[in-house]
Order: sequence, then C-alpha cells, then structure tokens
Amino acid sequence: MQPTSVKSKAMVAWAAGEPLKLETVDVAPPKAGEVRVKIVATGVCHTDAFTLSGDDPEGIFPAILGHEGGGIVESVGEGVTSVTVGDHVIPLYTPECGECKFCKSGKTNLCQKIRETQGKGLMPDGTTRFSIDGKPIFHYMGCSTFSEYTVLPEISLAKINPQAPLEQVCLLGCGVTTGMGAVANTAKVQPGDTVAVFGLGGIGLSAVIGAQMAKAGRIIAIDINESKFDLAKKLGATDCVNPKNHQKPIQEVIVDMTDGGVDFSFECVGNVGLMRSALECCHKGWGESVIIGVAGAGQEISTRPFQLVTGRVWRGTAFGGVKGRSELPDYVERYLAGEFALDDFITHQLPLEQANEAFDLMHQGKSIRTVLSF
Amino acid sequence: MQPTSVKSKAMVAWAAGEPLKLETVDVAPPKAGEVRVKIVATGVCHTDAFTLSGDDPEGIFPAILGHEGGGIVESVGEGVTSVTVGDHVIPLYTPECGECKFCKSGKTNLCQKIRETQGKGLMPDGTTRFSIDGKPIFHYMGCSTFSEYTVLPEISLAKINPQAPLEQVCLLGCGVTTGMGAVANTAKVQPGDTVAVFGLGGIGLSAVIGAQMAKAGRIIAIDINESKFDLAKKLGATDCVNPKNHQKPIQEVIVDMTDGGVDFSFECVGNVGLMRSALECCHKGWGESVIIGVAGAGQEISTRPFQLVTGRVWRGTAFGGVKGRSELPDYVERYLAGEFALDDFITHQLPLEQANEAFDLMHQGKSIRTVLSF
Repeated sequence: MQPTSVKSKAMVAWAAGEPLKLETVDVAPPKAGEVRVKIVATGVCHTDAFTLSGDDPEGIFPAILGHEGGGIVESVGEGVTSVTVGDHVIPLYTPECGECKFCKSGKTNLCQKIRETQGKGLMPDGTTRFSIDGKPIFHYMGCSTFSEYTVLPEISLAKINPQAPLEQVCLLGCGVTTGMGAVANTAKVQPGDTVAVFGLGGIGLSAVIGAQMAKAGRIIAIDINESKFDLAKKLGATDCVNPKNHQKPIQEVIVDMTDGGVDFSFECVGNVGLMRSALECCHKGWGESVIIGVAGAGQEISTRPFQLVTGRVWRGTAFGGVKGRSELPDYVERYLAGEFALDDFITHQLPLEQANEAFDLMHQGKSIRTVLSF
Repeated sequence: MQPTSVKSKAMVAWAAGEPLKLETVDVAPPKAGEVRVKIVATGVCHTDAFTLSGDDPEGIFPAILGHEGGGIVESVGEGVTSVTVGDHVIPLYTPECGECKFCKSGKTNLCQKIRETQGKGLMPDGTTRFSIDGKPIFHYMGCSTFSEYTVLPEISLAKINPQAPLEQVCLLGCGVTTGMGAVANTAKVQPGDTVAVFGLGGIGLSAVIGAQMAKAGRIIAIDINESKFDLAKKLGATDCVNPKNHQKPIQEVIVDMTDGGVDFSFECVGNVGLMRSALECCHKGWGESVIIGVAGAGQEISTRPFQLVTGRVWRGTAFGGVKGRSELPDYVERYLAGEFALDDFITHQLPLEQANEAFDLMHQGKSIRTVLSF
C-alpha cells in the first residue's frame, strides 16, 4: 500500500520575529530515498531561536523549525533500505551519505550530499513535503521536528536502539552530542588534560560531561550566570569561574589558575569576544581551542598571529565531529549503559503546543533544555 | 688554561633605522654553561631587517644582530659537556634544555628555559658578553651571529657533522628549517596532499622543498613577484599563481583551482591579510593553515568563525617545530645525504663588512639569502 499524505499538527514559523503558530499541515508521503517519521519528542535549541529571531541570514519562512528530535519511522519511500517502518530514529541535520568526497575522506563528518537543497529548506529533489492548503511550507535544517510528522532523506536518519527513551535521547540529535563530540572527536582530550568550558548551556554542560568521561584532570567551567555552577560541578567541573568577579580579562584569570593555560578550551556560546578569550587562555606551545558556538551574521574572530605562532591551535566543530549514522547509535548505547545521564539537561517538559513558552524560558535563562512532546 | 676576552670584528646595530657599523668588540669568555663560538658564516634573514627597522617592539640597541649562523666551538665554560672545542655548531634562537615543562611535554619545541633573559638581549645570568670600551652591547635572539666571536648558552647549540659546509648549512639555523619543518613537523603533510605556499622568500621556497619531500600531490606557489616562479618550479612547485593576475580574491582562485581548497596552506610573509587568505583557501572539513610569517607589532588576524566551525584549522609554527639539539643535526645529515640542496637559496655571498648591502639586496627583492663570511 502506497503511503498517502497525512494531516499533522505542527508549530509553524510564519515569519521572523513572530511566535510560532499551531497549524494542521499536510505532510506528503516520502519520495524515493525518503522516510516519513512520526516525531515523539524534540528539544528546543538556541539555533531554532536564532533562526526565528531573524538574525540567521539563511533563515527561510514560512518553515517548520526544530532539529533535535526523536521519532519512529512511519513509512518509507522507494529504495529505502537502511530503516524500516517502526524503527526508532534520530533525525540528522548533518547527514551521512557515505559516498561524497567528504564522507569518503575519513577526516570530517560534514557530508555535503544534500547541503544545497537543505540550506534552501527543500528536500533533495528541490520541493517540500509540507503544505497548508496547497501552499508550501519549508523544511528546516533538513529535520523540522516541531511537527508530528516530518519527512527526511534516508541519509539523514540514525537508527537507534528502540529501548532508548526518545524523550531523552532526542537531545543527542544536537546539543549533547555536539558538546561531548567536541571533546572526544574534535579535541581528543586525554586523561589528565586541563580543560576550560566557556558557557554552561546545554552544549557547554555536555562538554563538561565529555571532559569528565575523558578523565580530564581539571575542568574549569566559565559562565556569568552562577546558577549554572551547581549542575556544572555535579557533572564534573572542578572549578567554576564567573568572569564578572575578576578585574583581569578572563583569559588571564585562566592562565594564572593553570600555570600557563589550559590544554583545551571550548567556546559554547557563539560570542566572538569569548572565542578570542578561549583561544588566548590556551597553553603556549600546544593548547587548542575549539569553537562550538554559532556567531551572529557577519561577526568575526580575531587575535594576534603570535598566539598561533607560539603553538596554540584554533579549530571548530559542527555536531561534535560525530558521523550521524555510523557513530550516533553508539552514543545511544553508551547512554543506555549508564555512561552519562540526560535527565539533568531536561529542565522542562511541555507539549508541542507550548513551544513558544520554551523559547521564553530559554531567553530568560531559566531552562537548559525544554523537551516538547506530541 | 682559562679562556680570556677576545677582540672580535662585528657589525653593530647602534640604533633602529641606522646602518650597521663595523666595530671591534670585546667578547668575554664563556661563563658556566656557556660556549664561545667562532662564526664561519651567517645568513641575513628578514627578521634581522625587521628588528633593525625599529618595527620590532622587542628590539634593543645597541646590539649585534644575526641568528642564522654556523661556527666552530672556540672555548667552553665550566660544566659544559655536550660540545667541546673544535665542534661544528649551529646557534639556536630556540634552545632545547630538555628539562623545562615545554621540553618535557613532547608537544612543542618552544623551550622556555632562558626566554626571559634572551628577550632582553642578555645571557641567562642577566649580563652581556659583548662590550666596546667597557660599554655593554646587547645580544640578539640569543645568537648574535654578525660577530666573528659570540657566546651562547650550551643549550642553544646544535652540534652537527663537521663535514657539512658551514657557509651552506648555516641556513638551517633559521629559514630553511622553518619552512621544511612547518611542512613536516607542524602540518605533517602526507603523500598526495594539496599544498599552497604564500610567499616565495627563503621560508616559502623551503616550504616548497618540504612539500616536495613529503610527496605532496600538488604544490601551488603564490607570489606577486613572478621572478620567483622559476626557482619555485625547480624546487617542486606544480603551479605558480600571481594574485595580481586575478580579479577574485586569491583564496577563491585557489579554491576554484583545487575543487574546494587545499589540504594545507603556509603563510610565509607575515602579512595578516594573506594569513586570512591562506586559511580561507583551505578545504572545508579538514584543511589546515600554518602561519610562519611574523606580522608587524599590533597587527591582528581575523576571519569568520564559520571558517573554523566548518572544519578548517588555524595554527602556527616557530622554527618549523624543530627541536634544535635533538632534531637539527639530522637535517644536516639529510642535507649531506643529498635529500635537498641549499645552493639555490644562496643568491649572494659577501664578507661580513658588507652586511648592509645584504639588507639592501633583500629590500630590493633581489636576494633570497645573502650569506656573510668572516
């Protein structure tokens, strides 16, 4: 039986700067190589808020936002072989085709197979699967998890252990994997290393967990919001620093605390000034700084080249360097094995209809993650 | 027999912006842990010119410049064990004590043991060994090779094979090792990699040699002075590009030439705009750019953080990451074994007394290296 269009409740972003609006959306059946997924839960991430704000130069409206979800395969298009109806999946905004120059390089997780259409809010064939009264609604980051039903390319789905609770492991679709992966995959932190984490949102706290799992000797957590410090310590931070309590620039404070600087630092905010601090608090000769946060359009990082000539390294990461289909399922297994917890991140749970409240909580600094359920 | 002070001819930099002046300098005997060396030949490097110009904020006068030399041990101070009278040596502006946190880290060649005094133009005990009529003359980069006799800490000498011609291998004291080491040690270029070298002075051409020795698949040499292209090609460059012949920014030209960018790029000029170009011509996902050139005081590099978040890496190198005492002697052996030539670099040979002519040739873009002999 051929799948047909389904009616789906969804929170639609009609325009930048406006609240999302609950709508009933027509979700077309998956075409060849595509999969329709029933979303069970989705986190609300700063990137969703960034796009909704209008600051994202690539933001396209009207669209269905959301990219940190967990769901169950509802139907599959022609030729789909890697997942089948009923499989539990995590949507991937960074796909893994296994065939492009990037996937084959073995050096990056940044599959480029569908980048162009994904960046335009479209499926690989250049059309959308969402519509209201025949008017197309755009996809977002190839995921659009703020919808009961969504359609993704097969290469954008990680098939995971069905025993994992989707309302928890949905966080592995973005923030938690990004932070943990940045530590393990991008930086390759070693036992005993000294680490600084700038910004204690979901990604920063995940970086703290990653550093703790990597057996870092010292984990310095930095934020201007001290209410985050208790949780950071619970997750493994050995020192918590509020830059506002110091006269000196924060990089000098960290250098003083660590006899010359840290082995690795992580910028988890998206503030270009903080990216500089994160680089400059690294140890001369070998310290490496990893940019995770996404800066506003047109903003630039800068430093004196001497910082690099004397041995510091500046790098960045997207989705923690994690390959979604081949590596993310293992993150789920490690979660199930008790290697790390996700409870601590989920400060709020709300029904999809209250997605705007999730943004409010985020903007007020009250939430780490709000998980929306359907 | 205790060594005593010797009279030495030297070219003295009395003040910033003034020509060097030939003087007879008193060179005190080496103290404990120090070695007096009779310099046989010295290259004249852009860094000498940079300091002499007055643009170097750390420049101190009066001083004896020069840091790319080769010589013979004339006398040794108390406790010196690693070299003896008659040994052939290359002075090291980056020492290797083997004991400091940096040396022990195994991650860097930036020994910090005597950094503070060296930066002030002094020997480790806080005094100078050079004087004229009792008035002290400062050391420079811990080397001061524009003097017939100079004194260095034992940890600042690489003992080399005495069969190597000092008027050639003196170039391994700075430029050539820096360029080759940046490719081999810092970037670790692999066979088949695509490489871009910005700036075809002594360091850039050495980076071309290094890339050729590493069996890079494609070596793109970039300079606005096309007279350098023949030699670059002789040394291994597969493509030569003059940015002035293109409308587009040079990074876009390179990206177009290489189907997405290079695996490694090297900035060998010290121009912060070119450092940005070098980063941005790297391949998304894995390309790494290495800053070798020394920028002017207060100048900064900048780029959009997106460049790093999408997988490019920005790093730097000093003396090519080469540990002077443990690794430089092997470079000399490889030269003797015919793995690379130095002849091509030595465009001019002059007596020490004509050091100012060497600067003129350099400023006119006529020389790669002038080697001064004594």
